[in-house]
Amino acid sequence: MHFQFMVYKFDFNQNRLRLEESFAALIGIIFIYEAFDKIIDINRHRPVRLHTDQILPPNCSCFTSNTTRKLNLIMTINDCYKNQSHQFIGIPCQIINDKAYIPDVFFFSIILFLSTFTLAYTLKNFKFSRFLPMSVRTKVSDFGVVLAIFINVLIDYFVGLDTLKLAVPQKFATTKENRGWIIRPFGKNSPYIWLAAVLPALLATILIFMDQHITTVIINRKENKLKKGSGYHLDLLIVAVCIGINSVFGLPWFVAATVLSINHVIALKLESGTAAPGEKPKFLGVREQRVTGFIVFLFIGLSVFLTKILGYIPMPVLYGVFLYMGISSMKEIQFISRVLLIFMPEKYQPDYVYLRYVRTSRVHMFTFIQISCLVLLWVIKSVESISILFPIMVLALVGARKVMDYLFTQRELEYLDDVVPEVVKKEIEERKNSASLDKTDEENQ
Amino acid sequence: MHFQFMVYKFDFNQNRLRLEESFAALIGIIFIYEAFDKIIDINRHRPVRLHTDQILPPNCSCFTSNTTRKLNLIMTINDCYKNQSHQFIGIPCQIINDKAYIPDVFFFSIILFLSTFTLAYTLKNFKFSRFLPMSVRTKVSDFGVVLAIFINVLIDYFVGLDTLKLAVPQKFATTKENRGWIIRPFGKNSPYIWLAAVLPALLATILIFMDQHITTVIINRKENKLKKGSGYHLDLLIVAVCIGINSVFGLPWFVAATVLSINHVIALKLESGTAAPGEKPKFLGVREQRVTGFIVFLFIGLSVFLTKILGYIPMPVLYGVFLYMGISSMKEIQFISRVLLIFMPEKYQPDYVYLRYVRTSRVHMFTFIQISCLVLLWVIKSVESISILFPIMVLALVGARKVMDYLFTQRELEYLDDVVPEVVKKEIEERKNSASLDKTDEENQ
Repeated sequence: MHFQFMVYKFDFNQNRLRLEESFAALIGIIFIYEAFDKIIDINRHRPVRLHTDQILPPNCSCFTSNTTRKLNLIMTINDCYKNQSHQFIGIPCQIINDKAYIPDVFFFSIILFLSTFTLAYTLKNFKFSRFLPMSVRTKVSDFGVVLAIFINVLIDYFVGLDTLKLAVPQKFATTKENRGWIIRPFGKNSPYIWLAAVLPALLATILIFMDQHITTVIINRKENKLKKGSGYHLDLLIVAVCIGINSVFGLPWFVAATVLSINHVIALKLESGTAAPGEKPKFLGVREQRVTGFIVFLFIGLSVFLTKILGYIPMPVLYGVFLYMGISSMKEIQFISRVLLIFMPEKYQPDYVYLRYVRTSRVHMFTFIQISCLVLLWVIKSVESISILFPIMVLALVGARKVMDYLFTQRELEYLDDVVPEVVKKEIEERKNSASLDKTDEENQ
Repeated sequence: MHFQFMVYKFDFNQNRLRLEESFAALIGIIFIYEAFDKIIDINRHRPVRLHTDQILPPNCSCFTSNTTRKLNLIMTINDCYKNQSHQFIGIPCQIINDKAYIPDVFFFSIILFLSTFTLAYTLKNFKFSRFLPMSVRTKVSDFGVVLAIFINVLIDYFVGLDTLKLAVPQKFATTKENRGWIIRPFGKNSPYIWLAAVLPALLATILIFMDQHITTVIINRKENKLKKGSGYHLDLLIVAVCIGINSVFGLPWFVAATVLSINHVIALKLESGTAAPGEKPKFLGVREQRVTGFIVFLFIGLSVFLTKILGYIPMPVLYGVFLYMGISSMKEIQFISRVLLIFMPEKYQPDYVYLRYVRTSRVHMFTFIQISCLVLLWVIKSVESISILFPIMVLALVGARKVMDYLFTQRELEYLDDVVPEVVKKEIEERKNSASLDKTDEENQ
């Protein structure tokens, strides 16, 4: 009842709110940001030593294997390296020695990261090149990401450096040792703590509801031409039941993940073969089935037995795939195309339908309001002390949308704030035009 | 007289031979190959240590700063690193210690190399994007390579690793010390050695003649719309005089460099501003002047006083620029587009004029003959013991061209072996078509 009320209130089923687009953009940006953040974070596990051109402190020198010490000489770390000396002797050396340092791995990780992203992106877009027959191209595209991972794992293997590897647990057990498989509801806390837990629980509910629902709304968009009907309430029910069960066992909660789901749909796209060159393949629909979903989760389960193979996959390769997924999920979001529009002079603008009816300055204003909302969400997400308010702020987006009703005319909002995909809009537009032309012709006769 | 004869024989002035294209392709490929070769060669100056996951030999262990030695333990280099130990103790360690090793620099150099190339390439093509007004875009494009160098020098500076830097001599002197500024013609050799020198001198003459002349022919192509007339003989005379003078002082010889000259022309292209979006800018001509040439060589001269600044430029950044120049000079060569054609199914082929008149299999045959010639040249260039024959083989290309007269009809060669640029050909083609249409119309009336 409660959920139904919210669904109605949000007008989700009518697909009339760009709210879900802002949210998808936020999730996409988080994906891209996290990829870079994590690759830089490798520096914490495999710290790099920079500024080797600085002079060593006095009375600190480097040890050479023939045990001669060069004291009181003005030397840099580079000079030591050139003498094949990698150890620093003397108490003042502490500032160097105390900093943990693993050579080569950090920079090699960056190369793996960029190489995986570039390869995945190039292979995925190989479909649109003119080379090789269409059937080969499609295969290369379909397996582009897998190929990119495979090739870079091989590179990592043959280089043989100590890159961070995917940490797969060696045995089937709880992460925290000896906590048992069933979580006692109150633990060592006073039973009355559940009263205080209502507030964070409510926030968590909002977040789960938004995350799950926004994702399903994006997937169920008309432009995806899904044949199977939507199941908003059933989906939520299953999510709720699963979260209940998982909580008892202390397992992670699962909701539909925006970026992964969008990528799943992209991967299953069914397109018409093109007969003539230059002709764009038509989007026919999505290969709707339960096989991919089943096999994906089967393999996640089987990964317990594949720890040895998975242990060969370096983390930078996975971060490269995250970056690829983040960027490819962003490409189809109108908000992003409107952000890019800000940097385009009017005469170079692409022929978007909404630009025919809404003045550019108004489009930019709409975009800037969206950007401010996103920045606000980002700040709240990032500042730890207030990040608990994040779900509330996601809800506040609905309020922001209401304010737009006063700033923009209904006609403007109709074009800016509509989820009918650009391609469909253009078709409607052109049909209208030719119809009115026919009419003029008739009148002239 | 001798030169004039050759010019006539080669039909250079009539611009009828694709010979110069094969040569330009070879030079471009050499540029790209050298860029990669040199970046890998950094491993010789800043050797990297790979396969750190291998187990240390018995009785070899690593030194830790608290002077405890862990002997007879099965350890890898990675384990030593994790203990912050970078020195290996024990006689069996020699196989590790004897290999020179500078950490981090090699991988960082690869990152700089790729970053410079990608940035230069992206900024140069920024002109064709839709962002920012045309004037800003053109500026960014024009200074793209300089910007790429500047940004990457800054990155290198702030990272502060011991990357290979541009080695600029600190004082104005001959490379070989005490050899004096004037080279004695015979040195310590017997004066009769000049007889034997005739043969290599002849080969050098052919090479200089080909290199200089092919470059000037490429630059003087009709498609470049140069207003100033060609000066093949005068240019050669100046080159000959300069080589004579430089030889006396033991300075390097100068001829027109193919890749650099093509890039100079590309940089000076004058294009019409586009009024409508999507419209391709028209090539109006080349900004012909003597300022760039003068300033370039002035700065090369001034570099003697700029050693300190030039010393900040890492070599990988320059290799990145070489790669960019090699690739950008290849783009306009028909041979390369025909090589790519091999991998395209017939129905996806672009609408090249020669494809309208020559069967695809014949086009491929022509391309394969060119490829074999190039491979032969490459092999001769690479195998040291026969590389002296390279100039002869370049001449032999003329013979290969003669053989083509028997393999292809004159009509086929007219389309494949013609330097009239693709764009011009298409225009002629279309005018012909519309003319014949007009004629048919007249006949019908």
